[in-house]
Amino acid sequence: MDAVSNKPVIIHKGTHVQEQQATLLIEEPLEIRINGKPYAVIMRTPGNEMELAAGFCLTEGIIDSFSEIHTIGFCADAPAGMQNIVNVMVSQQACGRGEEAAEPSARAVRKMASRSSCGLCGVEMLQDVEKKTSPLLSDLKIPAGNFYRMLNRMLEFQKMYSSTKAAHAAGIFYPGGEPIVGREDVGRHNALDKVIGHALMKGLDCSRLVALLSSRISFEMVQKALRARIPVVAAVSAATSLAVDLAERNGCTLIGRIWEKSLIIYSHPDRIVT
Amino acid sequence: MDAVSNKPVIIHKGTHVQEQQATLLIEEPLEIRINGKPYAVIMRTPGNEMELAAGFCLTEGIIDSFSEIHTIGFCADAPAGMQNIVNVMVSQQACGRGEEAAEPSARAVRKMASRSSCGLCGVEMLQDVEKKTSPLLSDLKIPAGNFYRMLNRMLEFQKMYSSTKAAHAAGIFYPGGEPIVGREDVGRHNALDKVIGHALMKGLDCSRLVALLSSRISFEMVQKALRARIPVVAAVSAATSLAVDLAERNGCTLIGRIWEKSLIIYSHPDRIVT
Repeated sequence: MDAVSNKPVIIHKGTHVQEQQATLLIEEPLEIRINGKPYAVIMRTPGNEMELAAGFCLTEGIIDSFSEIHTIGFCADAPAGMQNIVNVMVSQQACGRGEEAAEPSARAVRKMASRSSCGLCGVEMLQDVEKKTSPLLSDLKIPAGNFYRMLNRMLEFQKMYSSTKAAHAAGIFYPGGEPIVGREDVGRHNALDKVIGHALMKGLDCSRLVALLSSRISFEMVQKALRARIPVVAAVSAATSLAVDLAERNGCTLIGRIWEKSLIIYSHPDRIVT
Repeated sequence: MDAVSNKPVIIHKGTHVQEQQATLLIEEPLEIRINGKPYAVIMRTPGNEMELAAGFCLTEGIIDSFSEIHTIGFCADAPAGMQNIVNVMVSQQACGRGEEAAEPSARAVRKMASRSSCGLCGVEMLQDVEKKTSPLLSDLKIPAGNFYRMLNRMLEFQKMYSSTKAAHAAGIFYPGGEPIVGREDVGRHNALDKVIGHALMKGLDCSRLVALLSSRISFEMVQKALRARIPVVAAVSAATSLAVDLAERNGCTLIGRIWEKSLIIYSHPDRIVT
């Protein structure tokens, strides 16, 4: 079963504007527990969670072979549609290795306070972010055409991409399309943190500015924009379901799949004019 | 200054094979300390570290404004070329918030045991991995043409990508080009863990198999392959400097930028025949 959801969006193609259904990839948290103890929370697409947890345990160095896993399964009390906790019961030896590793390495990992409930879900992640932010109220209006201009100007900052094809870029732009700063990094999270850090150090008021990303827009990218008070996030690639939910609830305009003369508006289209 | 390095690689273009210099994006760890206390280690591309650390502190919810940062700078005793530790001195209030957050969220974050030295570097990361792995000795031989076939077959597993443009894929293949399993996920780390988990649960001997990725090959992707004993990792996109270093030191063949009838061999080309 594909983990996707449909959502009405606004698509600009040249001067043509229409409402249409877009198919979004579902992004949901998954908590991995080792012998009942919370080990890590990762953002993932639902499906094949037992494989994911088994592979995670091997590649994180908790187990050395599958025989060290006694059982692996969803938290038994999880409500329907909220199966976001997997418990892996491992041998004593493996459990010790997990405790020695102590902190998970690879990928976006959030260690969380021990929880006894089985109801971890995307909405809880949104609420976590909303405790540290407030909705964006900017009355900014930007012509759609300006985003094509921003994309062209971003190339000026993508020197490492052009020589290595391995770097992501993020930029902060005036609504008119003029760049303020652009940065590249192996990580899309880092590239965005670098330009946000630049704005912070320069004392810029981000509530009248646009962030442009060479990457996809996932949950954590919107989280960063909200913390920096950036009302419009535009990207070359697509947005995930949870990113759009977070943006919609908090007044953030998301624009994705900017390509030559077309783009998709996922949330708060009122800031974009034709 | 661009954070790139040159490395001799082997390029296949159709039946034409030649040695050439490739430009690799540099990937290095950065430890962020809050008031002298290790908070997180992220994999990043060197450059603009003060911006990165300032942005990180804002977007992680440690500071609410730049005025809460007293000073920000590299670890004073770091040897030349090893400036991979940034110390952020923040107000008491912000420090409390950092401790409350306790665990960093977004992106690949590794919390590490407290260290007093200032010499964190990529080589240390390699050694960390090498403690948990041993070099791959597989005598596998694969015709270069088989990788183009694998790429075509991978499309069969990329249904979510085709509807959302937001999913990464990973697959495990026989050397002849036949797929064993393919999985999609919002995270490239998860997609690889899912197929590794599948192999683990099925009891497959990965030492005669190939992993194929829709993404880039970063340090952590090679780390996962070594843990799973996969001798050949092939990808649609490019490899980073640290990924190639790790693969070279541990007998892993890396192949990237597979595209129609061309590909780049970054390490251990002896397993690829024309």
